[in-house]
Formats: sequence, C-alpha cells, structure tokens
Amino acid sequence: MDRKIKVAQYGTGKMSVYTMRYVYEKGAEIVGAVDVNPAVIGKDIGEIIGTENKGVKVVSLEEAEKMLTETKPDIVIVTTMSLIKDVEDALMLCAKLGINAITTCEEAFYPMNSNPGVTTKIDEMSKKTGCTITGSGYQDIYWGQLISSIAGSTQTIKKIKGSSSYNVEDYGIALAKAHGAGLTLEEFDSQVASVDRISDEERKSMIDKGEYLPSYMWNVNGWLCDKLGLTVKSQTQKTVPQTHSEDIYSSTLGMTVKAGDATGMSAVVTTETEEGITIESECIGKVYSKDDFDKNEWTIIGEPETTLVINKPATVELTCASIVNRIPDVINSKPGYVPTEEMGDLYYRVKPLNEYVK
Amino acid sequence: MDRKIKVAQYGTGKMSVYTMRYVYEKGAEIVGAVDVNPAVIGKDIGEIIGTENKGVKVVSLEEAEKMLTETKPDIVIVTTMSLIKDVEDALMLCAKLGINAITTCEEAFYPMNSNPGVTTKIDEMSKKTGCTITGSGYQDIYWGQLISSIAGSTQTIKKIKGSSSYNVEDYGIALAKAHGAGLTLEEFDSQVASVDRISDEERKSMIDKGEYLPSYMWNVNGWLCDKLGLTVKSQTQKTVPQTHSEDIYSSTLGMTVKAGDATGMSAVVTTETEEGITIESECIGKVYSKDDFDKNEWTIIGEPETTLVINKPATVELTCASIVNRIPDVINSKPGYVPTEEMGDLYYRVKPLNEYVK
Repeated sequence: MDRKIKVAQYGTGKMSVYTMRYVYEKGAEIVGAVDVNPAVIGKDIGEIIGTENKGVKVVSLEEAEKMLTETKPDIVIVTTMSLIKDVEDALMLCAKLGINAITTCEEAFYPMNSNPGVTTKIDEMSKKTGCTITGSGYQDIYWGQLISSIAGSTQTIKKIKGSSSYNVEDYGIALAKAHGAGLTLEEFDSQVASVDRISDEERKSMIDKGEYLPSYMWNVNGWLCDKLGLTVKSQTQKTVPQTHSEDIYSSTLGMTVKAGDATGMSAVVTTETEEGITIESECIGKVYSKDDFDKNEWTIIGEPETTLVINKPATVELTCASIVNRIPDVINSKPGYVPTEEMGDLYYRVKPLNEYVK
Repeated sequence: MDRKIKVAQYGTGKMSVYTMRYVYEKGAEIVGAVDVNPAVIGKDIGEIIGTENKGVKVVSLEEAEKMLTETKPDIVIVTTMSLIKDVEDALMLCAKLGINAITTCEEAFYPMNSNPGVTTKIDEMSKKTGCTITGSGYQDIYWGQLISSIAGSTQTIKKIKGSSSYNVEDYGIALAKAHGAGLTLEEFDSQVASVDRISDEERKSMIDKGEYLPSYMWNVNGWLCDKLGLTVKSQTQKTVPQTHSEDIYSSTLGMTVKAGDATGMSAVVTTETEEGITIESECIGKVYSKDDFDKNEWTIIGEPETTLVINKPATVELTCASIVNRIPDVINSKPGYVPTEEMGDLYYRVKPLNEYVK
C-alpha cells in the first residue's frame, strides 16, 4: 500500500496511550477516536498520548458510526473490555461498515469456543461486507506462538503445561475480590470455586446461550489446539485458591490477608484432545508477596521435555506492540472472524506498516 | 501427498539414531542409508536404531549415487559434519540428482554469509534440477523462531542479545582443545583468540575464498537479520576465554583446569545493521563446574525489554525433531538453497508427514 495506514482508536484509556503512539511510530496515522468518558470526549488525542495536538478529537459513542463512515479507517483498534459480549457492539459496528478491527479483548483471541453465538454473528456480517475481525495482544506470542514454536521442535507431545501470573494489586478492588483475595478457604470454595463446579452439559448450555465466563486460558487452549491441528474432545475449567505462608497486606483491598487464607486464585483450564495430547494451562492472579513477580512458564512434556520461561514480561507494552505489528496481517487476511493463528506468525515491523500490506 | 514420504539417511552416527526413528514415527520411511564407517556399512538400519530389521542396508559413499538413483527418496537427511565445505559433496550430489536435502550442519543454517562460493554452487545446481537444499536443527527454533516471535511483540528493538552454552566435556578432546580448555590466559590469547583478531578486509577475503571458520552464531545472526528484514552493515566475531574461580577436573582432557585458566571459550558475534539494530550473540563452550548447565537465554532490548530463558534443552532430540518436522516445508519449498526462515514457521506434525505436502 503506497499511503499511510489509517487507524481509528475505539477506547482511549490506558492501553490506547501505547497503541496510538505505536501507530504513529510505525508510520501509520490515527484518523479518529471514540470513548464513552465525558472527561475525554472532545479532547485532541495528542493530549492523551502526551504529544502536540494531532488534529483528531475524541468523539462520543453516539458519533462513532458517523466518524468511521467519514474517516474511512483501514482498521479499528478496540481496547475496551475483556469479554466478547462487552466488545460485541464495537466489533459489529466495524463489521457492518466493512472496516477491519483488532481488539485486546482477551476472550476475542478465540471466542468461538466460549461464545459461538456472538462470534458467528460477527463472522457472518464481516464476511458479507468483506472485512476481518480478530483479537490479539500479549497472548498472541506468550501463550501462543512461543508454545507452537517449541512444539515445532518436539517429536511427540504428551502434555502442554502453561502458567502465567499477575498481581491482582494492580487491577483494582473489583478484580481482587473476584479473585477471592482475602477470603478464607471455606469462603473461597463457596463464593468462587463453586461457580466452576458445573457439569459438562451445564457448561455447554451456558456457552451456547452466551452466558459462560471463560478465564483467559479457556480461549488460549482453543487457539493452541487450532494452531497445532488438534481436535478438542473436552475442556474443563476449575478455580484453585492461592495461599501464602505469611500474612500479606493488600493496599487494593485495604486489609491484611492472613497466612493460609486466599491471596487470589488460579484458573486451570484442561483440554483433552482426540490426538491424546492434553493442554493444561493456568492463570494465577493473587496478591504478591515480596518474592513474587510476573512469570510466564510453559513446559512441553513428551520427547523431549522443554521448559520456556519469561520473567517479568512488560505485558502492557507487549500487548500493544503485538496489536500494532498485527495490523498488516489483519488487512491482508481473508474476511470473517479470523483468529490470529490463521494469519501466520507475527513479525517485527521495521518498515512503515503500509509496506507490509499487499 | 497420498503415499509415505521416502527419506534417505546420509550419515548413520549418533544423530541418525533419532532422525531415522522419528521419520518412521511420523509415518514416513527410510529407503536408503549411507556411511563411510566400514563397521556399519552393510548393516541393516534396524540394528542402528534398535528395532527389527527394516530391510534397508547402509551403503558406502561410493554407492551413494547409485542408491539415491534407484530408491528415489523425496528428501535426504544429512547428519555428518558442522561446516558447509564438509557437507558440500553430499549436498551437491543431492542437488545434481534433483533430490531435496536437509542437514544438521550448523553452518548450513545460513551459509550465504560465511561461504557464499559453496552456497551459490549448490543453489545454482538445485535450481537447475528443481530441488531444495537447506539446514535446520536446534537453532531453527531456539536461536531463530523464538527470537523472531519475541521481536513480533516488540515495538522498537535496539539490541538483541543471545547466549547459549554447552559443556565441552560432551564432545571429545579435539573440540575441548579447540575451545582452549586447559590453557593459561596467555596461551589462550595467542593460540585461540588471535585467530579472530583480523581486519574486516581479511575476514571478507577469507569468506570469499571459502576459508573462513564461522562460529555457530555467525550464521544465526545472518538468519535472524534476514528473518527480521534487517540489512547487515558489519559483522565481527571475537573469542573470549571463560574461567572459573576454582580448579575443575576435565575427564575429556584428563587434566585439572586451574582456577583462572581457560575452561573454554565464548565466541561473540556482533552484527550492526542499517536499521540501527545490533545483534550480539554468543556461544559458550566450556568445561562445566557442578553449578553449570546448558542454558539458552535471549534478551530483546528496546520497548519493551524481554528475556526468554530455556534451561537444560535436550539439544539432540530438539535438533532431530526440528529436522523431521521441517521435511514437508522443504518438499513444498521453491527450488534452490533456501534458508528455513523463508519457509515460514516450523510446526508440530501431529499427522503423517505426507499429509503436509502439497
């Protein structure tokens, strides 16, 4: 493509500060921005990313369709929420207008296995209008491509075991509470773990109705199976409390979590496949002790066994860089709701983004 | 392809025990085998891999052409030596006969930057006969694809720093001596380090004449630059002695390496690119102390900084599995000497290999 790629930003919060700057740094441009927050509507995006004015003002949700129709972006970056039903309106608007979209929404990474109803609706509309909708972010490389790469050097896989951790202190009180931080183990069991103690039929029914709440790894396991050519036989999720041997003070909760009480939880997703390979991946969110730090660790068990470790990943920057580096792939992709594993592997973009567009 | 892939094995030593078994396990078959060792010529390959007889006898080098002509393999796996000039005859024979070949030869991973003369010769012949020649192995994923994957999640790269270590105790006395193990630092400097203290012109002249001895990372840096779309401005190699604070006994050398003397060496290859990105990678080969173990560690420095660690990789199995998983890519590839970075990323093969051949 011999002109700059035009990008619209949907959601102008914390992540957009990175995605918008990265877009400019990679030789593309922001042509429009949308938010619901009255405090930012009307502001120039330069104020948000801390540069000179860019001549692009944030519009309200009501004006989104008009803005997209007038500015005709090549792609929309959606950085709002983590569940597909919460980004459905944004993605459907793009699909309806025939504009490609990429989102940081974690469920959107592989939503076909947790909310097929919404996914099919977006897929059908985007196929009709000829655009591509997808999800990317940190998981694209760190829970996806790195794992499939190690698999590529393995003769026989029996099991893939993944674990990724984060500090619930960083994400506010609602998330900390949802993770059961501060509860006794009895309270954790009845208030948190019980939600996932459902039968396969109950889970299937919830998924079919679009009422299932997947943990991040639910969608990651689906993506990995697709990438590795595996057929899912069953997939379950369970919630395990995390504890620490000493009291820990949580500033987010404003309380001391007692030794032995829940500091948070691990959501473990186990996938069994027709090929006999098991994928067991867990996301650990807890109040960190002073010795804890973010860690992403995956082991492929088979011939041979290999463990990959990434310590202290800068998840925000990695998420936003992955989103921006993926832009050419999304524009080049076939229409529909296309998971990134079908777009080929993600590469560093050393040249302006438009030079990678066919 | 609706029949089993036919593979010939060139070299029936330690690595072939794995590659041949893996070929069978992945639903392909060995149709011929070559070696120079009188002790194995005439043996059935089943004796080498520890199974029942396979009805395939190892032939001598003199019979290689006849065997390849008669058995018409789809691909030859060459597992003999580490320098391209030492596998030149094998690869040229395949090229002449129009048979694809893949080799574990480390220099063959990206030989165009260390021995362009031999590479061009093989490239021209294979283009004429319509086959593909390439090099793969451990480096394909662990010094290649994992690094380009992390790069894909990075916004701006300033430097890529890689380090990989191995125990020279495992590879015989010749290699231990070549690594300077057991020398005083003065001896190391004059006998080992001095070899790389040459001007850029001298190095270029040696490369042009096919007389340059690259360290493994020399070719890896070339591969990475190609994969990341970087233009090499300069590349240098230097040898740094490794030492330990205590005496270490080396069973391979049959001597005690004194504290402060060279336990081996690190070969550091530094590549500067037009794009301003530096790649500095080192291979550390030394007599291990009891606290050392094989480690593969790469850091991408930029926005953000990310470090990937693989502890205790099973290099032999990973090398052979990579070779076998790459077979469909080689058969599907365009003709010529094609580095694996041009074949797309390496995947796990869950189905018989022939099902991945177009």
